[in-house]
Amino acid sequence: MDSPARPAPAPAALLYYVAFSQLLGLAVVATTGTWLGVYRGGIAWESALQFNVHPLCMIIGLVFLQGDALLVYRVFRNEAKRTTKVLHGLLHVFAFVIALVGLVAVFDYHRKEGYADLYSLHSWCGILVFVLFFVQWLVGFSFFLFPGASFSLRSRYRPQHVFLGGAIFLLSVGTALLGLKEALLFELGTKYSKFEPEGVLANVLGLLLAAFGTVVLYILTRADWKRPLQAEEQALSMDFKTLTEGDSPSSQ
Amino acid sequence: MDSPARPAPAPAALLYYVAFSQLLGLAVVATTGTWLGVYRGGIAWESALQFNVHPLCMIIGLVFLQGDALLVYRVFRNEAKRTTKVLHGLLHVFAFVIALVGLVAVFDYHRKEGYADLYSLHSWCGILVFVLFFVQWLVGFSFFLFPGASFSLRSRYRPQHVFLGGAIFLLSVGTALLGLKEALLFELGTKYSKFEPEGVLANVLGLLLAAFGTVVLYILTRADWKRPLQAEEQALSMDFKTLTEGDSPSSQ
Repeated sequence: MDSPARPAPAPAALLYYVAFSQLLGLAVVATTGTWLGVYRGGIAWESALQFNVHPLCMIIGLVFLQGDALLVYRVFRNEAKRTTKVLHGLLHVFAFVIALVGLVAVFDYHRKEGYADLYSLHSWCGILVFVLFFVQWLVGFSFFLFPGASFSLRSRYRPQHVFLGGAIFLLSVGTALLGLKEALLFELGTKYSKFEPEGVLANVLGLLLAAFGTVVLYILTRADWKRPLQAEEQALSMDFKTLTEGDSPSSQ
Repeated sequence: MDSPARPAPAPAALLYYVAFSQLLGLAVVATTGTWLGVYRGGIAWESALQFNVHPLCMIIGLVFLQGDALLVYRVFRNEAKRTTKVLHGLLHVFAFVIALVGLVAVFDYHRKEGYADLYSLHSWCGILVFVLFFVQWLVGFSFFLFPGASFSLRSRYRPQHVFLGGAIFLLSVGTALLGLKEALLFELGTKYSKFEPEGVLANVLGLLLAAFGTVVLYILTRADWKRPLQAEEQALSMDFKTLTEGDSPSSQ
């Protein structure tokens, strides 16, 4: 077997899938920008266009950046674990700050226009996602970046962190789809059924969102694309124990 | 290690999670029934109530039954692989037939009322889910139930089948959420923001749907809950190869 010190090259298919996910992610952001620019008058903070800050920030923060934050462990396979962790945590900070701007935008817009808050399924899911995202970040930081948590505690918590991270990402994509649908039905009404260009563009955006979520999920769940264990992690894992037992002097 | 012939008991936590998933799934179906019964006049084929057949069938078929079809490999851990496969395939057949009734209901209703078809994001996602579901079933049947596919072909296809199955299930849940939102906004309009009881009930239904999807995904992805390999599968797997290499006469 290869020495754990020698970097293993990333599987070629993984690189193609990651490139494809980035194309989809950028297409999602670009299509959102096009939709807001062409059909909704663009973006501004001090006007009725303030609402448009909300979808753009949420798509960039909680969809694109959050998705990419999950992919860093697949892309940076041979860098030091700590560097990758810091990047993972930082991307989530950027995602959080951008999402916070998007959240403030919609509440501020509602306040100015006298609209009710938090009545729709989209808003309920959105608040749930935002709270889960924040708690997950805090707990993740305390366990994995802040020194102190024992190796065994980290090992026990890691699978829960990984699952919850994926679930929060998928819930973010689902919430974005609900918000898109809401924005379409409020604005287009019955014109939606006439295949208006805005409706068709927004439907395409919805499919792109679903495709981005699916491709990121595929990359994350494919077993043979998981980050190879570093030497110090391997020393404490069952895998290494099993491997070394075969080569140990007692069995020669 | 235990002999592969001795059935390993299912982990206790798995049983609790499966029970919880069933409670959530039944709550989803019951809440859908309540919503349609209390606020939408109930269900009938030969009237304007024909539309209501659509959400009920889709929730039962493509959410509850599809979710349960994915769980059979976790629940029936020690039964013969073929029995479990047949149950998995049959539950998908039931899900497909019920979903087909739901699909016919909405197209027939649209035709009678003169509404346009397939203009919304919900309908685009729905058709995509339905086609993927059908193709996945056909390919799965050909590879895993119809005799002929070699072991190595099955082994290569299995991870793709598992991923796509999970993705189709999640896309079904997402499509249901979009449909729910559409039905709410069409009917309630601006009353939605007044916290009408129907809106609140439907929001709760949406959260239950998301929770069911999340719990099923958790059960499916938890590594230590995967179905243990049967003796004949183990004999041909890499795990078994690794295990036997340590005990082979050459290394003694």
